[in-house]
Amino acid sequence: MSQPRFDVLGLGNAIVDVIARCDEAFLASHDLAKGSMHLVSQDEAETLYGQMGPGMESSGGSAANTIAGIASLGGSAAFAGKVADDALGGVFAHDIRALGVHFDTAPLDSGAATGRCLVLVTPDGERTMNTFLGAAQELAPADIDTSVVADASMLYLEGYLWDPENAKQAFVAAAKAAQEAGRDVVLTLSDAFCVERYRDEFLDLIKQGTVDLVFANEHEVRSLYQTGDLATAMDHLGGQMREAVITRGAQGASIYKKGSRVDVPAAPVDQVVDLTGAGDLYAAGYLFARARGMSAPDCGKLGALCAAEVISHVGARPQADLKDLARQNGFAI
Amino acid sequence: MSQPRFDVLGLGNAIVDVIARCDEAFLASHDLAKGSMHLVSQDEAETLYGQMGPGMESSGGSAANTIAGIASLGGSAAFAGKVADDALGGVFAHDIRALGVHFDTAPLDSGAATGRCLVLVTPDGERTMNTFLGAAQELAPADIDTSVVADASMLYLEGYLWDPENAKQAFVAAAKAAQEAGRDVVLTLSDAFCVERYRDEFLDLIKQGTVDLVFANEHEVRSLYQTGDLATAMDHLGGQMREAVITRGAQGASIYKKGSRVDVPAAPVDQVVDLTGAGDLYAAGYLFARARGMSAPDCGKLGALCAAEVISHVGARPQADLKDLARQNGFAI
Repeated sequence: MSQPRFDVLGLGNAIVDVIARCDEAFLASHDLAKGSMHLVSQDEAETLYGQMGPGMESSGGSAANTIAGIASLGGSAAFAGKVADDALGGVFAHDIRALGVHFDTAPLDSGAATGRCLVLVTPDGERTMNTFLGAAQELAPADIDTSVVADASMLYLEGYLWDPENAKQAFVAAAKAAQEAGRDVVLTLSDAFCVERYRDEFLDLIKQGTVDLVFANEHEVRSLYQTGDLATAMDHLGGQMREAVITRGAQGASIYKKGSRVDVPAAPVDQVVDLTGAGDLYAAGYLFARARGMSAPDCGKLGALCAAEVISHVGARPQADLKDLARQNGFAI
Repeated sequence: MSQPRFDVLGLGNAIVDVIARCDEAFLASHDLAKGSMHLVSQDEAETLYGQMGPGMESSGGSAANTIAGIASLGGSAAFAGKVADDALGGVFAHDIRALGVHFDTAPLDSGAATGRCLVLVTPDGERTMNTFLGAAQELAPADIDTSVVADASMLYLEGYLWDPENAKQAFVAAAKAAQEAGRDVVLTLSDAFCVERYRDEFLDLIKQGTVDLVFANEHEVRSLYQTGDLATAMDHLGGQMREAVITRGAQGASIYKKGSRVDVPAAPVDQVVDLTGAGDLYAAGYLFARARGMSAPDCGKLGALCAAEVISHVGARPQADLKDLARQNGFAI
């Protein structure tokens, strides 16, 4: 087996974020659960957009953010996801390609517009996301280039892909191709409500050994095992998986590897401006370090560093050169 | 004469910014003079976009940024400028209306796309702008609602309007309507190269008393009087105008009012991230305070505070609530 061309291939919903500040009352009056992701129709998205404050548009999408982070660290990365042939689709494609990421999923030429996520950021930095999937839900198995899957050390999948039926099939096809090529399959659970919707299927993926590494935050892992007790839930996931990472915000992260657990603290942040992308960029740092064969604590440390960068400004993509940042923090990359 | 409905009506190029980081070498290889604004064709914009890094889209336009700042301070503001009936035009209109700004210029229904400015930010925070005017250059005298002009204490005009011929005519028509209604006309010189192009016309506006207040930075005032000596140029402008403000970056600003000069220091900034919008937001604070009848030093202090906010993050529109920020800094507004 030759050296794979890509460190990571990401598969996810191709989305442009529209980020705006709001107060707690706005969330309450729109019946939005803070910190979670809601799916909305195009009409609902337009209504909410009309009511929210001025925004800033930035390419997003969970797995796409992770891939952008890996590229910024100097990793070799690819992404598959569906945009439309419209202005926002052009923005998404430009932004990911400008980082050197291999992205050649054909845009949807008619029908839905490029997906967008209305991200509402409260004064505490927490983000509440309202996603109109649009073209993203048309991602289909035919969009999976199995030669690219086979040519990536890791396949990174977001749990959000379970929402659009076509994309779920693409997820399954890609995971199968990765397994056949002997590549690692990585899953992020994405969101506690997403876990609510697809708990049994996610548990099946874990039990059947389809995934080699799972990322989850505290809410997601508790939702997965339907328990309020974090330690129980974490140990459960750590026991079922050969490798699992539970990110815990300011408390750092717990990494389970072959049954043993190591805790890695969060990296310091002067001011938390916007939590959007924190989990995505944690995964970027972790996966890049993992691809370079670093130890679990170093994978966790680089993940924490990348997460700290992205929460110090508005937007889910890194603004600093992450390779420079890593080097300044002692990583010889 | 009744109390005017608006503190300020801004007239300017309606533009969406695409902001990306770049290094000094990128500017050099594209023959771009750092810190200035270049007009580019749609083709040139597309070529440059294809070569620049990942971007963040945010409503921009010099006078529009100022108007957004005045609204964020709690002022009553209106804006006139031309977008196309396309996705970016929708973004521009949403963002300015979401602040409560009166904006009802009819979008261009065919022809050019919404104007955009490719903003390249170097590691020192300086920005170099490449503007494709698009629909903005179709702003015409017919777009000027003279009843709105008459209903605004001040008319704020950007020098950039001199570039598109139609927009220049709209500028002249609006200035005439403001004079007839006994309102103050304010001009910002916009850019040193813009002053190069239209020096004689700007000097005529000053000499003829068409404008009551001029904003300029160091480069612009030196270009206006074709001298390398800043003090000479400043005194010249301060002598010709009843009121003039020269912004000098980290050195603060010099305000000339009825022949006497007062210097106001810059507000402290932890880290200069992106200078885009610094002058625009300085004008916002100054004009808001002026509309509230504050003293020249207080106008300068509020201008400096707003400029400091906008240069501490990426993008030319305020991210903080400027009214809250002003109150936290002792302004009883």
